[in-house]
Order: sequence, then C-alpha cells, then structure tokens
Amino acid sequence: MSKKELFTPAWTEEAPRKGTYRSIFKWGDPAGFKHPNRRFYALMKDVFQMTDADFAQRQEEGNETVRSEQPIQLSDEQIRTFREMVGEENVETDDYARVRYTAGKTMEEAMKLRKGIVENPADVVVHPRNKEDVQRIVAYCGEQRIPIYPYGGGSSVTFGFHCTQGGVSLVMSTHMNRVVEFNETNQTITVEPGILGPAYEEMLNNAPQVFKAKRKYTGGHFPQSFEYSSVGGWISALGSGQQSSYYGDMYDIVLSQEYVTPAGSFRTFDYPGTATGPKVNDIMKGSEGAYGVLVGATLKLFRFMPENRQRFSYLFPTWEAAVDAAREISQGEFGMPAVFRISDPEETDVGLKLYGIEGTVLDKFIRLRGYKPMERCLYIGSTEGEKGFSKNVAKNVRRVCKAYGAMSLTGYPARRWEHGRYTDPYMREDLNDYGIMIDTLESGVTWDNLHHLHQGVRKFIKARPRTVCMTHASHFYPQGTNLYFIFLARMNDVEEYMAFQADIIDQIEKHGGSLSHHHGVGKMLAPWMEKHLGPMQMDVLRALKRHFDPHNVMNPGGTLGLDLPPNP
Amino acid sequence: MSKKELFTPAWTEEAPRKGTYRSIFKWGDPAGFKHPNRRFYALMKDVFQMTDADFAQRQEEGNETVRSEQPIQLSDEQIRTFREMVGEENVETDDYARVRYTAGKTMEEAMKLRKGIVENPADVVVHPRNKEDVQRIVAYCGEQRIPIYPYGGGSSVTFGFHCTQGGVSLVMSTHMNRVVEFNETNQTITVEPGILGPAYEEMLNNAPQVFKAKRKYTGGHFPQSFEYSSVGGWISALGSGQQSSYYGDMYDIVLSQEYVTPAGSFRTFDYPGTATGPKVNDIMKGSEGAYGVLVGATLKLFRFMPENRQRFSYLFPTWEAAVDAAREISQGEFGMPAVFRISDPEETDVGLKLYGIEGTVLDKFIRLRGYKPMERCLYIGSTEGEKGFSKNVAKNVRRVCKAYGAMSLTGYPARRWEHGRYTDPYMREDLNDYGIMIDTLESGVTWDNLHHLHQGVRKFIKARPRTVCMTHASHFYPQGTNLYFIFLARMNDVEEYMAFQADIIDQIEKHGGSLSHHHGVGKMLAPWMEKHLGPMQMDVLRALKRHFDPHNVMNPGGTLGLDLPPNP
Repeated sequence: MSKKELFTPAWTEEAPRKGTYRSIFKWGDPAGFKHPNRRFYALMKDVFQMTDADFAQRQEEGNETVRSEQPIQLSDEQIRTFREMVGEENVETDDYARVRYTAGKTMEEAMKLRKGIVENPADVVVHPRNKEDVQRIVAYCGEQRIPIYPYGGGSSVTFGFHCTQGGVSLVMSTHMNRVVEFNETNQTITVEPGILGPAYEEMLNNAPQVFKAKRKYTGGHFPQSFEYSSVGGWISALGSGQQSSYYGDMYDIVLSQEYVTPAGSFRTFDYPGTATGPKVNDIMKGSEGAYGVLVGATLKLFRFMPENRQRFSYLFPTWEAAVDAAREISQGEFGMPAVFRISDPEETDVGLKLYGIEGTVLDKFIRLRGYKPMERCLYIGSTEGEKGFSKNVAKNVRRVCKAYGAMSLTGYPARRWEHGRYTDPYMREDLNDYGIMIDTLESGVTWDNLHHLHQGVRKFIKARPRTVCMTHASHFYPQGTNLYFIFLARMNDVEEYMAFQADIIDQIEKHGGSLSHHHGVGKMLAPWMEKHLGPMQMDVLRALKRHFDPHNVMNPGGTLGLDLPPNP
Repeated sequence: MSKKELFTPAWTEEAPRKGTYRSIFKWGDPAGFKHPNRRFYALMKDVFQMTDADFAQRQEEGNETVRSEQPIQLSDEQIRTFREMVGEENVETDDYARVRYTAGKTMEEAMKLRKGIVENPADVVVHPRNKEDVQRIVAYCGEQRIPIYPYGGGSSVTFGFHCTQGGVSLVMSTHMNRVVEFNETNQTITVEPGILGPAYEEMLNNAPQVFKAKRKYTGGHFPQSFEYSSVGGWISALGSGQQSSYYGDMYDIVLSQEYVTPAGSFRTFDYPGTATGPKVNDIMKGSEGAYGVLVGATLKLFRFMPENRQRFSYLFPTWEAAVDAAREISQGEFGMPAVFRISDPEETDVGLKLYGIEGTVLDKFIRLRGYKPMERCLYIGSTEGEKGFSKNVAKNVRRVCKAYGAMSLTGYPARRWEHGRYTDPYMREDLNDYGIMIDTLESGVTWDNLHHLHQGVRKFIKARPRTVCMTHASHFYPQGTNLYFIFLARMNDVEEYMAFQADIIDQIEKHGGSLSHHHGVGKMLAPWMEKHLGPMQMDVLRALKRHFDPHNVMNPGGTLGLDLPPNP
C-alpha cells in the first residue's frame, strides 16, 4: 500500500470541553472513543463517493458553549418552591443543565446541537431525593399545571423525555438509584428507577458479596444503551436487551412497579400469576412517563452462569435460509439462544469487514464454498442457562443451521460482536464530524410478513443513491422477530434528514411492521400512533391518560401521541 | 372383610332427566360418572363421622323440572328485535334455557339448584351467529340499557357470567366456535371464542389432516374444566392449564384479540413484541366480559410431541422439602416441567389412597424408609418439548429431588393422575347427594409467603371439626406458584356454606395471597376486590370500564367489583 492509501482521518480523541454542545450530544464516556476501522473507512469513501480530502476537516463539532435564548417560563416563586421541596443543591436553572437534561440521543438532536440549535429546554432541572419528593413535585405541578418530564439515563432515541413544553426535567438517576430490597427466595430485586445498567448488573453479579446471597445473579437485560440507560427507562419505553430471546423483553422481566401519578400513588402486586382482572402492572409498562412517575420496580433475576455459555456463528447462503433457520430455532422448543442475531446480506458484508474476516484466506475459502458477498448472511449467537440446557440449545442450533445449508464460522465472530456490543454508538460522532448521518429505526414483525417488510423498507432506502442500509433481526419469539434497519448517508441538513426519516417510518407502517419494537414511541413516532394503533386502541390509551393525568402535566407535548390532534 | 364393610352407596348412574335442575348443575357429560373409590368412601365415613346408614338415601337430587318464578323483564318488542337480529331459532325465552344459561358451577349454585332455588335468570338467551350479530346486539343493548352476559362453556366457579340483572345471556359456544385462520408460519391459530377445549385441541393434534399442515400442534392449555370450557372463557377469566408451568398461562398464550364493546369494535396486533405504549391486547385480558364481548382470538401454538414426554413422581419427607425442591426446579434454568404439582401432607395421603398405593407393600416400604403419613408429600410431573430438552428437564428434576431427600415413585402416579385429570369433578354430585360439600379456592403467591399463606388458610379450615383440607401447588414460576385449597365437610345449608367460604376468602386475603390465581373473580370474589387491589388499582379498572361501557350493560352486577360500592 502507498502512503496515500494509509491516510486516516483525524478522528476526535479528546473529551469534549465542559459546557459545550458536544459534551451533551456525544455518546457515552466523554473520554471514550471507537473509530471506524480501515475497512469501514474505505467502504464509506467508496459508497459515499468521498475522498480522503472530504475527511480532512471536521465540521460543526459543537464545541461552542451552550446557550439558550429561551427564557425560563416558570415564576421565581415556582422555582423557589422546588428549591424548598428538594433542597437548593437539587435544583438547576442554568442554560447548560436545562439543555443537557432535555436532550436525548436522536440524530435530529445531534444535528441541531452541532449547529447550536436548542429547542424546548426544560425551565428547571430537579433531582428528587426519594419518592416523597416526587409526590410533592407531582402534586405541586398538578396544581400549577407545570409539565414534568422524567429523565433516566438520557439515551432516548425517540425524544422520550424531551421537554416539549418546558417545565421540569425530573432527573431520576442522580439520587433515586438505590436498592430497596434484594429477595433471594423470590429471585427478585426492588430498585429505584434511576439506577443505570452497569451498577445494576455489577451488584447482581456480585450478589454474594453485596447482599450476602448464596448465588450470583444477572438482570438479563443488555440493550446497546446498557451503560447509559436506566432501569426506569427500560421499563417506561419497553426496551429489549441483546439477550432478550432467552431472558425476555423488559416487559417480561418487571414483576411489579410503584408509581406516583397526579391521580395518586400505588404499587402493583408481586404475584407471579393472578386472575384478578386486567393487570395494572402491565397497563403501566410502556407508558413513557405520560401516566405518572415510576418510583420503584421489582425485577426478576436470573442465575449468573457465564461458565455455561456456548458461542456460535454460522454463515447462510441466503437471507431466506437464515430466516427459515431462525424461525425453526424459535419454534423448535429446545430452548432459546440468548444472543440471537441474523444479518441481511448488506449488514453481513459490513460485519465481515468489521470482524476482520473479509479479504482473508478464510474469506476466500468461504467464497469458494459458495457463500457469496451480498447473498450470504451471518448468524451469531450464544446461550445461557443451566449447563445441559445450554448445550442442548447449541446442539440443536447446529443441527438446524446445517439443515439450512449454513457453515460454521466458530464462536469467533460472536466473541468479536460481544466485545463491541456497547461501543458501536461511539462511531456516530466520528461519522457526523465528516457530514455522514447514521441512524436506525426498528420494527416488530410476524414471520409471515418479515420479507415483505424487509424488502419494502430496504427498497425505499436503497432507492436513494449512495445510501447504506443494513438490517438485522435480533429479538426472537416463536411468532416472529424484529427488524432493525441501520442507514447511513452523506447528509447533514436537518430538514433533509427529517424528511428522509419520516419517509422510512411511513414505509415501515405501510409494510405492516410495528411502529417500534424496543425503542419506544416518545414524541418522534407520536404522529404515526393514531394511524398505527387505530382510533379505538388510541382511545384506550387516552382514557388511561385522562384517568391518571387529567391536566396533562405528565410528559406532555406528544408522548405516545396521546395529546396530539387525531389524524385526519 | 365382612359383607357389611363392603356396603357401597347407590351412587347415581343415570343421566339426569331432561329439563331438570340436576341436568343443569351436574358436571360434564350427562351420562358420565366417576364415583369415590372404596378407600375414599372409607375416609369420608371416618372423617365426617358418618356411617353406611348416612349413605342410604340420596338427598335433594334436583330431579324436579326447572321453573322460574321470575317474569321476563324485557318487553315483547325487545325480544322481537333480538329474534329479527339473529333469527327465531337463536332466541330462547323458556324457563329452562333462562336458568341453564345463567348457571355456572359454583358450590352455591349447586346447593341452591338442588333445592329448586333459582336466582336471577337471564330474561332471554341469544345465540349469535357471527361478530356482526354481536355488534348489532351490543349496540341495541347499549341503546336500550339491556345487560349482556357473555356465556362460553358454562364452567365458571365464580359466577362469571351469572345474569345478576337479568338481560341477555349471550351464548358464544353455539355458533361462534369456528376457525378463522390457521397460520403455520407464525404458529398461530385464530378462532372464534366459543370453541371448547376438546374440539380445539383435537384439530390441532390433527393439523396435517385438518389444515394440511406440516406438523401436529397443541394449544398447551389443559385446565381441569378443559372438556367444558371455551377459549373465550380461558382468556376472559385468565385461566391456567395443568401444564402451564411449561406452556404458560392463557395470559401468555393469547397473541391478539378482537372485541365488540359499547364504545366500538377493534382487533389488537399480532406482533410478538412491540414498544408502542401500553399493550391494549393485555389490557383486555381478564376483563371477564365487563368491557366488551370477545369475538375472536389469535393463540400461540406449540408442537405436539407427546413421544418426548417424560413422567415422574417423587415422595418428599416433608412439605418444606417439597417446596424447596419445587423452587429450585423453577429457578434452575434447565427448562420447566409441564405438569408440575406438589401436594401437601393431607392431599398426599388422600392421593395415595386414590392412586391405590396406601396400604400396599410399596406403602410399607415407603414408611420404613421414613416417609411418614401426614408428613410425606407427593410430587408428580411430566415434561414437554424437544427430546433433548425434555430429557434434560427430567434429569435435573431427578437431581434436585434427590438433593432434597425425595424417593422416586416412578412415573406411575403421574400416569394415574393424568388418567383422572378431567374426571375428578364428576365426584361432586355423588358427595353432594349425601350432604357432603366439596369446593375449592385458589391463590397466587410468591415463594417467600407460601408457608404463611398455606398455614394460615389451612389452620382456619382445619379449626372446623371434621373438615378435610387438601392443598397443592400446580402452576410454577421462578418467582412463586399458586396454592389450591380443596375443602370437604358435611354441610348442605347454603347460608352456613357461604359464611364458611367467605371466611376462607378472608383468610386468603389476610395472609397475603392473591384473590384468585386462575379461576377469575366473577361476582363471587367481587366484594373483596377493592380491599385486595386497593382503591388506586380499582380506579384504573373502573376508568377502563367507563371508557368501554359507559352505561354498564356489559356483565353488570358485580363483575370484578367494578360496579359495587367502594368498601368502607
């Protein structure tokens, strides 16, 4: 290779300066980075028709100090009341805090913050110390008609807690991140909602030391946002972890919840099974802070047995074969793998680049065996559970994969994927720095509609010149799965991006996918809700909204489409 | 044995005469019988201090022709309208039909019908032909404020469809029992709600012939009422089958539903996973006909693989050991058994009599090994699923049982139990014929409260002289199980029985059990609902009721406690 070909863009390597826009929109650890590798960089240049020169200068980095033009809409008296309720130190009104605790991780926000555009900051940021604080705040805001936006880890990609109408950003993760009760008999833990993934998982893995427990446990929930999302956010937005095919979605993992709502406070039951009418515990899940504030949750625990884990990867000749095998695995009743992920041909090709397989001797061998680029599909997975169970799952996976023409790639790609499972989002800033947009949309789907949805959405995205569209399915059920679309294009105009995104959402809806599989709805997908659910189902959600929050102070301004005008 | 000891009561062996009370309250097949065996008969004489003479004459057999004193409260015009809507042949107004389609299978009803006491018969019995009929009926009843009581298989033990306020008994099982769609790709079936267990299961077991399917399937739901209960009833009252520990409760099995409510008609989604707000599909489950009429349901199917089934039975030295082992099995993550049932010492003793083990050489051997009567506890179970999975479950069950001091009794008792799984209710009429009451109440419970609940309820029941109380747990989850109390006493006074039953329900509530695990609430448990759920959760259910059924025409008069005055 010549020296010229070895050009590497000056990917950012410094933590953002404090107080800047960049410090808000940057993903994760301020000092954490993961840059595109050489093969991915080459791919981008190729697909986007860019040259090294296009990567010479970073653009709109958002290194300016945050300023908001928007005046605080609350009165001094109201702000003073909050200070009296929770203590001086737990109330912030400076521009930085107001913007920081309003901003999530949507592409739209990143694009706008890079340009110094601030929309709808909170009027005040309040850090409640306990549920009594939350009760006082909710009661007062109800009286005063002040909007409340519960904020957990800050990782929403749907404007979940965006302070559309100003008001209070209620930060649950500052203080309300404690353990209330660890119950080894029931295999449950009760926590406050503000606890983030790593703290939650670490104490469970170390339960013998932390709780004097007999065993080690796991929460079983590992979304990509794991390191920067909270238990409360997982529940409120109905998250699914990367091992959900075994452990279940957050919907399944939550045994009971405690809420403070404008209509009053309550805790649901811990019974694992009941027949006492519609389950209020389930009614509250996914309510995205629009019915009340989640102040406590009891979650099911699982035994931490990584020593039993089996990892595997297979390459299928076609997407159809990969889907058929995944369906057989999901319906075969031999137990579900935990990580379970099939990539379509375009994602497979990028994946083989990222995992360092493309272009190697192994790759040549694979191609010779008939697994061709832009046809072949990667499946990676791993198992959990008791040793014999885990082995039996892996054994049956192998049987099914062979039956559908797959070749084993060993556990190596699965390990590589595991290694990067939480760090891929770090690449977004690098791409954005050079005007490349990367975003995702995802959808739940039944088996019989999978190809229709995949082809429909992909066809639309690929109709745009020089646009990458990678798709995988990564959460499996006997009746279907999800499709996760990742799209990249050279694009940094906000309006252009929003129109493109809206069109993709239209395509998902039109092709019969659910509006969201595990990102939630927030205010981003809200305009599609009425059409998607239909007026009858929307009316049910609205009836509950009126019941819990008659004055619409809980996460108002679009959440779940509850307070949007009905579609024409 | 002397001749005298061989006296056998003249258990009824003839089908009830048509048109009689007995033909209504008798369980199951009119010509089907299962009588107490010799050992059980001896036990009753012993415990209840009865002699053969007490079994000489059957009492209050209900062989009289049904008559209702209650006039039809609807106008001729209203009845005529129903006839025009659904056809002459689908509307009944005779006393027998009115009483038959109001009566469920509670002990209270059986006692009263034996005495010729008829309460709250329907004014009219309507058999809708399709969902359009249901839409017309619901709309008309809404306008005219006529109560509607959806009736499925008729097996409710909680006054689920009891026509407390007269009106229409809407019989779903006569015509609305068809298959709408069989979908092998998704492994689902969509049916009308009136289909009964055997028809449902049989067509799934024979899917290759019936649907030209590639495989055989099972619905996985086998409540004791299987032969005389409907899919709609299972969903509406949140049933659990005897293999629920593997297949899940009906709550888990229902993928989507279609409803006709006074507020309008709708169908929920088939997506196996979504994050689009609270799930309306789940909100409707367990609504017991109080929000609307279920007119269709899509259910998850499972592969029918009885060839992989492993059966086992173990005897534990104590109830504590049985419970500890059951918890370890439920939390061990090696896969769950399907049938999974542990009996407390009193039930174990009766069970060993019924299964023909007590008093045999085997029993002597068992006693010598230290498994003592009124201490030892029986566990029976069987597995489902893929062959390796099934074997691994059985292997681990064996490991756990041995670790907790159990001895294997082979698969024989499990086979014996299987054989009688649907026929035990037939014995009720025999017992009632001689003035012996038998009834059940059941409750969901977390592991850490199991012994407290068991001891509390048992202590109360056993405080009554000459009363049998048998308890088992038969639906298992990692976080807990259910307790099923069966109680027998010489008692045929309705008031005395109702006071006794109310006291037991009080004890369940007081000791922290759920008000119902899988029988539903109906109008029987309704008075306890407000106290049990608390006003906040009750208000949520009431808000939904107001939304769907503002004029309270859907199953009014107590269902779920929705229209009862709040407790003091």
